[in-house]
This record gives sequence, C-alpha cells and structure tokens, in this order.
Amino acid sequence: MAGDVLAAYLNAQAGDFLRSLRLHREAGSDVEAAAEAARLLHRAARRISGALSVYRPLTDTAWSDELRAELAWLSGTLALEHAYTERLSRLRGALHRLSGTGGPPDRPLGEEAAAVGAAAGEAAGGGGTTTASAASTAAAARPARAARRSVSLATGAPDPAPAPRRGTADGADPAEGAEETSGTAVGKRPDQRSDQCADGPDSTGRPTAPQRAGGVDGGRGAGLTVGAARAGALLERQLTLARTRAHTAALQALGSSRCHAVADTVALLASEVPLDETAAQRPAEQVLPPLAELAHRRLVEAVDGLPLGRAGHPYNAEALIHGLAATPAADAPPASEEQDAPWHQVRRLLRMRRYALEVLEPTEPKPPKAPDEGAGSGLVNGPVEPQLSVRLLAAAQALERHRDASEAAAAAAAAARTPRIAPATAYALGVLHADQRHEVEAARFAFGRIWRRTATRAT
Amino acid sequence: MAGDVLAAYLNAQAGDFLRSLRLHREAGSDVEAAAEAARLLHRAARRISGALSVYRPLTDTAWSDELRAELAWLSGTLALEHAYTERLSRLRGALHRLSGTGGPPDRPLGEEAAAVGAAAGEAAGGGGTTTASAASTAAAARPARAARRSVSLATGAPDPAPAPRRGTADGADPAEGAEETSGTAVGKRPDQRSDQCADGPDSTGRPTAPQRAGGVDGGRGAGLTVGAARAGALLERQLTLARTRAHTAALQALGSSRCHAVADTVALLASEVPLDETAAQRPAEQVLPPLAELAHRRLVEAVDGLPLGRAGHPYNAEALIHGLAATPAADAPPASEEQDAPWHQVRRLLRMRRYALEVLEPTEPKPPKAPDEGAGSGLVNGPVEPQLSVRLLAAAQALERHRDASEAAAAAAAAARTPRIAPATAYALGVLHADQRHEVEAARFAFGRIWRRTATRAT
Repeated sequence: MAGDVLAAYLNAQAGDFLRSLRLHREAGSDVEAAAEAARLLHRAARRISGALSVYRPLTDTAWSDELRAELAWLSGTLALEHAYTERLSRLRGALHRLSGTGGPPDRPLGEEAAAVGAAAGEAAGGGGTTTASAASTAAAARPARAARRSVSLATGAPDPAPAPRRGTADGADPAEGAEETSGTAVGKRPDQRSDQCADGPDSTGRPTAPQRAGGVDGGRGAGLTVGAARAGALLERQLTLARTRAHTAALQALGSSRCHAVADTVALLASEVPLDETAAQRPAEQVLPPLAELAHRRLVEAVDGLPLGRAGHPYNAEALIHGLAATPAADAPPASEEQDAPWHQVRRLLRMRRYALEVLEPTEPKPPKAPDEGAGSGLVNGPVEPQLSVRLLAAAQALERHRDASEAAAAAAAAARTPRIAPATAYALGVLHADQRHEVEAARFAFGRIWRRTATRAT
Repeated sequence: MAGDVLAAYLNAQAGDFLRSLRLHREAGSDVEAAAEAARLLHRAARRISGALSVYRPLTDTAWSDELRAELAWLSGTLALEHAYTERLSRLRGALHRLSGTGGPPDRPLGEEAAAVGAAAGEAAGGGGTTTASAASTAAAARPARAARRSVSLATGAPDPAPAPRRGTADGADPAEGAEETSGTAVGKRPDQRSDQCADGPDSTGRPTAPQRAGGVDGGRGAGLTVGAARAGALLERQLTLARTRAHTAALQALGSSRCHAVADTVALLASEVPLDETAAQRPAEQVLPPLAELAHRRLVEAVDGLPLGRAGHPYNAEALIHGLAATPAADAPPASEEQDAPWHQVRRLLRMRRYALEVLEPTEPKPPKAPDEGAGSGLVNGPVEPQLSVRLLAAAQALERHRDASEAAAAAAAAARTPRIAPATAYALGVLHADQRHEVEAARFAFGRIWRRTATRAT
C-alpha cells in the first residue's frame, strides 16, 4: 500500500535524524564529529520534509505541515554555521587563485564530470539507513581538502609584496567585533538546554576547529598583494563573526524546548507515521507515481522558465549584469538577487524531485550496475533511466555551486560597503565579486548541460 | 614570375597608401573623413609591411627591412588615437552593462557567427585596390553604432542613484590634466610640417568629434551608481588625455620629414618594386607558395604553443589568475602581460598569414561564391578551402578582441592605482577589470573554436 512505502522511507530517515542527534550529544569535545552529526541531522531533516511535501495527500496534512515548518526552522538554523565556513573558505581560495599564488585548485577543470562521478557515489548509497556511510565518506574527504588548503597557504608561493599583518586593517574597530562575538557566545548561551538535544562539552560557545584554523591561516595572506590580503582579513573578520553567531544560534536551537518538541514528533515518525487513512490504503503504484510525477512537472516547468538558452552560451556575461548596480545602502538586497531567485527555486524543486524518487526507489547498498541492466523497482512510471538519480544529483550540485557563488559574491560586495576601507581593499573586493558572479554564470552553464542530458534521457 | 605577383600586390597597396594620405589632406575639417583616411593608411601600411616580411627573399632586403621599420613606426603612431577611443568606448559600454542600465549590447550573443559573417564581407573585397569600399562600409557602420550608444546613454534607464557630476571626482586635480592637455596640443604642435603629409585645418590639435562626444556623454553616468559613475569619469579623463596626446603625436608624425621619406619610398613601390633579381625571376608557383607555407607553419607552431586545451573549457578562470597580483607600482607592467603575450604573437602571425594569402589570391569584387565552387587561383598549394581567408579573418578578429579587452583591463587596473580615489570608485574598477579579463578569456575560447574548424579544414 502507498502508506507503507512512504512510512518505510520516513521511518528510516527519522531513525537517521534521531541517531544524528544522539551522535551530536556523544561527540563531546570532538568538534569534527559534532559538525558531522549536525550535517547528518540537516540531511535527514531535509529528506523528511521533502517526502512529506511531495506525498502530502497521503499524510495527516495538519500534522505534517506543522512538522515541515519546524524542520525548516531547525535545518535552516543548523545549516548556517557550515555555510559561513564554506563561504569564507571559497572566498579565501578565490583570493589566492586571483593572486596567482598557486592556492588549491578551487575551480578545477573537468569539474562537471567529477561531480557526476561523486554524485554516483552518493546516489549508490542514497535513501534509507545506509546513507550515513556514503555521507561520512564525503564528509571525511572535506577535512583532508581543508588540510591541503592550509598547507598550501602556509607554504605559499614567493611573496612579491608581503602583506602587512595589521589588527586594525581597513579602519574597522576590532574591539567592537570581539566584544560582539564574546557577548553573543557567552551572554546568550542557552542555560536551559536539556539532555536530549544538546549537552556536549562543545556547547560552551568557544571556537570550533575550523574557526581556529581560520584564525591561523586566514589573515596571514602569504603571497597576496596588500589589497588582496586586506580584503581577505576583512572577509575573515566579518564571516567569522557571522559564523560564531550562527554557531551560538545552532547550540541555542539544539538546546531549546522547540527542538525537543521536534525530536518528539520525529520519534513518532520513526515508529508510526500519521497517515490519511483513505489515501494511504490505496495501492502504492496508483498513488505514489502520480505525486512524484507532479513534483517532476513542477521542476520541469520551473526549469522551462529559466533563461537556459542564454546560459548555454559560454561567456554570456549575464550573471554580472547588475555587478555595479547594487545600492550602497548596507541592508539593501543586491540587485542580482532577483536574477538568481528562479535558479534557487529550481534547486529546491530539484531536491523535492530527488527525494520523491528516493521514496519510490529505496536503493540497497550494492555494486554499481551496468548501465544497460535497467532499474529494479516497478513503482516508477515508464522506462527508468538508471543514471537518472545520479544526473539529478549532479544538476543539484551545480545549483548548489550557483548558490554558494552567489552568496559569496554578495559577501564580497557587502564587505566593500564597510566604511573607511582602503581603495586597494575595495578594488580587490570588486575583482572578487566579479569573479564569484562569473562562477554563478559558470554554474548555470554547467546546470544547462547536465539538464539537457537529463531531459533527453528521462522524458 | 614571382616578382610580378608580389609587385602587383605591393603596387595596389602603395596606391591605397598614397590615396589615403591625400584623402587625409583633403579631409580638412571633416573629422570623420580624416579618421577614416588614417584608418585606411594604417591598413595599407600593415599590408605592405606584411607582404614585404613574408616574401622578403624576393626583395632587396636592405631596402625592404628599412621600409618595414618605418611603416611600423608610422602605423603604430597612427593607431594609438583610435585605440584609445575604442578603449574608452569599450570600458564605458562595460560600465553601463555592469550597471544593468540597458546600454548597448557590447557583448551580444552569437558574436562568433556574426564575426565570421562580417569577415566574409571584408574578405570578399580584400586585397588590391578594391579594399577601400569594403573597409569604408565597415567604418561607416561604426559611427552608427557610436550614435546608438550615445542615444542609449542619454535616454538611459531610470536612475537609482544619481551620480554627482563632479569636476574634481576622486581627488585628482582636473586643472593639472587640462594644462597638460593644452600644453601638449598647442605647445608641441609641429610647425615645420609640409604639404605632402598633413596640412588640413584639422591639424591644430583641437578635439576631434569623438573627443567632444566623449565629453558630452561620458561623465554624465545616467543610471550609474556613484562608484561606476566616478570610475567612468576617471577613465574618461585618463583616456581622453592619452588620446589627445596620441592625436597630437599622429599629427606631428604626419607632418614630419620622416613621414615624407616614407611617402617617397612608398611612391617608388607604387611604380617599381626593388626586387632581388634572381629570386624574382623564378616562376611564381615555385617561389611564392613555399614562403606562404612558411608563414603558415610559423603560425601553426605558435598556436600549438597556446594553452588551447584549457582555453577550450568554458569558464576556466585562467585569464583572471593574476587579477590581483598586479604590483601597485604605477609603471610596473601588469602580471597578466606575460600570460597574454603568446596570444598577441599569434595575432601578429595570423595577420602575416592573411596577407601572404592575399598576395597569392588577389580577389576581384564579385558576388559571394557558393561554398563548393572552389578557389580560382592556382598559386595556392593543394586543394583550397574557399572559406579559409574568412576563417583566418574571424580568428584574427577574436584575437583583436583579446587584445582590446586585455588593454582595457589594464587601463582599469591602472586607473585604480590613481592616488586618493574613493573606495566605491576602486570597487567599480575592480569589477570592471575582472569583467574585461573575462572578455579576454571569452576571446580565447572563441579563437579556439574558430581555429579548430580552420585547422581541420585547411590542413
């Protein structure tokens, strides 16, 4: 029955959710383990939310709508710290690349092919309780990359113009930032947090390993020109502050009674999913595929609204078309936001589409099939392209790159609006902003190519 | 005989050269006609020089080497004013595009195809005395484009942040610039110039039409943010000063006795070319094709040295790799120069290759041939691709775009080193620099595609 298939998926994801909560509690002072647990929590929360959204008619809608709202709050809160860490790392890598100091290849060639390969790895273990190993493999690769980056920063190329190591670079007041940081971290520390959601020794608001690592390499600017080094220091300061706040907010969220309530609801999901009795009793093959198809149609319609024709022309210069149109007011949204919004929407719909497919095709851990072997599950409408989920994941990754670059470009533009910065700093931030907007354009181009292949094979 | 073929080509080009000198003299106060004459002069000079270089063994080498050096001096001097005009126009267009103010589409889609089309137009009339009409058609199109740009600047999009119209923008001293300008234009006016090379009423050093037009639209910055408007004003001031100096230098050169000597030498070329008696007496089909082939091999070897594999990946981010590595010293060459040099060298060799082909295949004015009709001349080695000269021209145009964008990027970077500019100005110049470096990358990508087609068909 349709309800059983959905319930099986939700059971598994709820199990992952509760397990990652426990892992986070057990991580204790192991900062890496805590970050990994937070990532898994985020991952399970998005899947529960996505499945409840696509297969909403099968559920007790009042109940599932409320849970989705709460999961959105929790995963949104948990995602921020990681996002700031990645944003700083991306911008730091770009500054080194732009300075020709031989930093890590943050934009390697053949990236698209590699993305499909990596996606295949994750998709093979996707869905159900077996996802943890694939995800942790991917996560384990990350610190290694970060370590390589640190090494290359430390041993960087010969320094043509040694950057002055200045605490007060660009005229901003470091004392003010420090005060705000400690104020947030200590003063707002959640005192009422319980055992269930967060109680590890890591919840004291002291900096995590990535934060410390940032402090070690970030400001040094080996091999950077003065402008690039100052721009790096300014971004370091601003994004570290934002990350510290996000860290505190995440700890607060994990310790809140609201989090407890979510955990209780998800615990219910792990045993018995509140379903709509009538719809859930109907045969799975009658109910589920049309709903998955609906998610697919929503995605296709949204993609059809994208300017893919233009994006398919390399170097169309579209993404930077508002590069200088940003209003100088500090809080005004960048003019590029409107241009990026449809792409962000497609990214979200793509996620829904992937989770819809995961519910239909719970994959077991098995060796990769030959391409012509066909798919096993009979729940999917029509002939199944075995590589479909891989391609959808690759498309999603292109749009994640799109979002990351878009937000990094906005961060560079925002930093350039800091009062009293030096012209050299502002110039470097301008170059950096344009570079990231071109990454946005490159991601659109990559998405267009992946989508064209996906569309021709899947429909 | 080989000498006759070369002499016929040189006669025709020398005729164009002398005619354009006369046109320049007759242009009088007609600024556009004078600019057009200068362009034709430059065009003929490059062709004479190129033919003498490729077919050097056929000529009296001492004589031809000296003439080439003198032609390089003259055409280099004459080209500068136009280059500054175009550079300012390119940067102004880019600033408007980057501000999303709906300026002219200075980077339209399908540009490559259009370039090939335009190239076909010019190539059909290429070589010999019939070139003037094709070139003047192309030139006539330019003012029209400039006019459209002026209109779109004047009627620009709604102005989100009206740019202050400041004479003293960015702290530079306008009086100093003005003094230098008039000092150069008046004080250094060549008083000893003769009738033959330059005597029109235009030689008084007063601003030409494009210069005045620049003064009208350039600084207004309709629809631009403060930073973009100030960056535009700064570039306007610096490039207009450079252009005025170039204009004066061109007038000085045209009036100099050195120019008279060149004109006398070219006049000799129009009647009787000093040839090497032995080589020139040999059959044309034995002597000329191997020399053209040598020019072709030099070109192919230089292209083989280019990183075309990397350039063929769209969004490879290679061109901006030194975007922030420029040393802040005012006179230091930009770090990107080393990266661009091999491409500039290929552009020059491509020109040689084209002129070598023009000597072998003097085309008559005729309607465009069907692609399968074949080439008429028997002088070219092996089967001839009728579209070869068209493709070579398209490739050359891609590399001209490469050079223009490279120099525009350098101009933006140089402007950012102006002392005491505002951070917003520096930021806009940073965005502009990065944008033009991406144009460099786009031009390399376009060249790679054209070359691949040329290479597979021509060899």
